[in-house]
Amino acid sequence: MNTAFDCIPCFVRQTLNAVRLASSDTKIHALVLREVLKELSIMDLELCPPAMSMQIHRVIRRHAGNHDPYVSVKDQFNRFALALYPRLLEMVQTSNNPFETAVRLAIAGNIIDFGVNTTIDQSVVENTISATMSEPLAGDLNTLEETALSAANILYLGDNTGEIVFDKLLVTRLPMDRVTFAVRGRPIINDATMKDAVMTGMTELVPVVENGSDAPGTILEQCSDAFRKVFDAADLVIAKGQGNYETLSGSSKKIFFLLKAKCPVVADHIGYDVGASIITHSNPS
Amino acid sequence: MNTAFDCIPCFVRQTLNAVRLASSDTKIHALVLREVLKELSIMDLELCPPAMSMQIHRVIRRHAGNHDPYVSVKDQFNRFALALYPRLLEMVQTSNNPFETAVRLAIAGNIIDFGVNTTIDQSVVENTISATMSEPLAGDLNTLEETALSAANILYLGDNTGEIVFDKLLVTRLPMDRVTFAVRGRPIINDATMKDAVMTGMTELVPVVENGSDAPGTILEQCSDAFRKVFDAADLVIAKGQGNYETLSGSSKKIFFLLKAKCPVVADHIGYDVGASIITHSNPS
Repeated sequence: MNTAFDCIPCFVRQTLNAVRLASSDTKIHALVLREVLKELSIMDLELCPPAMSMQIHRVIRRHAGNHDPYVSVKDQFNRFALALYPRLLEMVQTSNNPFETAVRLAIAGNIIDFGVNTTIDQSVVENTISATMSEPLAGDLNTLEETALSAANILYLGDNTGEIVFDKLLVTRLPMDRVTFAVRGRPIINDATMKDAVMTGMTELVPVVENGSDAPGTILEQCSDAFRKVFDAADLVIAKGQGNYETLSGSSKKIFFLLKAKCPVVADHIGYDVGASIITHSNPS
Repeated sequence: MNTAFDCIPCFVRQTLNAVRLASSDTKIHALVLREVLKELSIMDLELCPPAMSMQIHRVIRRHAGNHDPYVSVKDQFNRFALALYPRLLEMVQTSNNPFETAVRLAIAGNIIDFGVNTTIDQSVVENTISATMSEPLAGDLNTLEETALSAANILYLGDNTGEIVFDKLLVTRLPMDRVTFAVRGRPIINDATMKDAVMTGMTELVPVVENGSDAPGTILEQCSDAFRKVFDAADLVIAKGQGNYETLSGSSKKIFFLLKAKCPVVADHIGYDVGASIITHSNPS
């Protein structure tokens, strides 16, 4: 999926949010803003949004001298989601349809995305959980469940910290002995890395692999050979969030995308409204 | 008032909105976005927002080959406001406090600002009129009225097209023989120029002067000598809108600013919430 012109103002806003997390020095804020504006002015607009975002956040981290601006946000949301986990697990376990409830909650957790919105707080997450349990779920839940139950090798592409705890609910409803979970290779925005998979206990459930990249999505050519082998070997990919959708929506592989549509560009691309809870797939066949 | 870092993403969004009005050619959109990003990357961040906006819109107009991208928007809102005018005039004339009603309506008209928000339509204006009539009016209405009644020479700085029709309601409640109305010197966003003053009948009420500038505000050093003489001669300035506030809020002259706070940067600077209807002044003495 190509970057839309409408993504550009959003990237500039993201830059400001990120550099304010990375440094309290307003001189650094001005420097980074200028550098990112310069980068954007010459950037290839045919790239997908996560490819541009990756480049922008590299500029931010380099100039701010902070390799992980979102570290405290990530820690905070992992802890918050872990505290919620027993209640969420009970919701799944007592549900008439545990698979559907686990999918809905995994999608609700996708709201914890600091690329799109830095005003996320615990009340936003709580409200999103309530809304996502009662609102329509767009897409074909039954096909997802049937495909997952019959798949030999499932690769689950994680997205954000905090959200990774919600993903545990769904992972435990899949045939776990056939699931591998993937995280980003290096810190990027508030995306989950191996450190978060360990902290949240995902590594205790299933094998977790790093994708080798610092893109906020899955740009296969940026990923490690080891990750690409895992990706190629999977006969089903479950991919969480906008970044994975933006980078893999054109794939010919069998991929189910589970996400909250959080920006108009992605929502329009899928054909739903902003705020929708969506299951969609790359390859209907 | 200096530009805030938060204005930068907003300028990029404004650029996209403006170039889409100026041209339907997506190649031009990309070219203009790149040029503006480059300009912003080297711009003096100590400038006030309208000074930066002026430079940005010059780039947009030059590269899009369109000297007045908002021409149809301006025409449309002048016509819409003129159609509303008899009803608005009746609201003033039948009011228990015609001066207050005229001030409230003049502030309501300030919502027609395509610099801040390009999703303005007729229903937004209608809703703003209703809300502004009933919601609190921040600031000292009585001092404004007393000062206006005793002033020898009032300069009324207009802001936007459409809004200029609402300004007629207030101009007719001032001592009209002592009022001069000012418009921008050249097209900038949807700000009112002499053409709009003629079209809306402002020129039939009071003398109208051009300020000689294409800034969306009143940057005195950018204005013509003729305008500066008028400005200097006034013992009271009534200035409409955010752009005039941003450029003149630090003035030692007696200025009353009448505006809708439409962005968080300006709202914070004045000390009110976004959406507030505000009377504020530069010089309390």
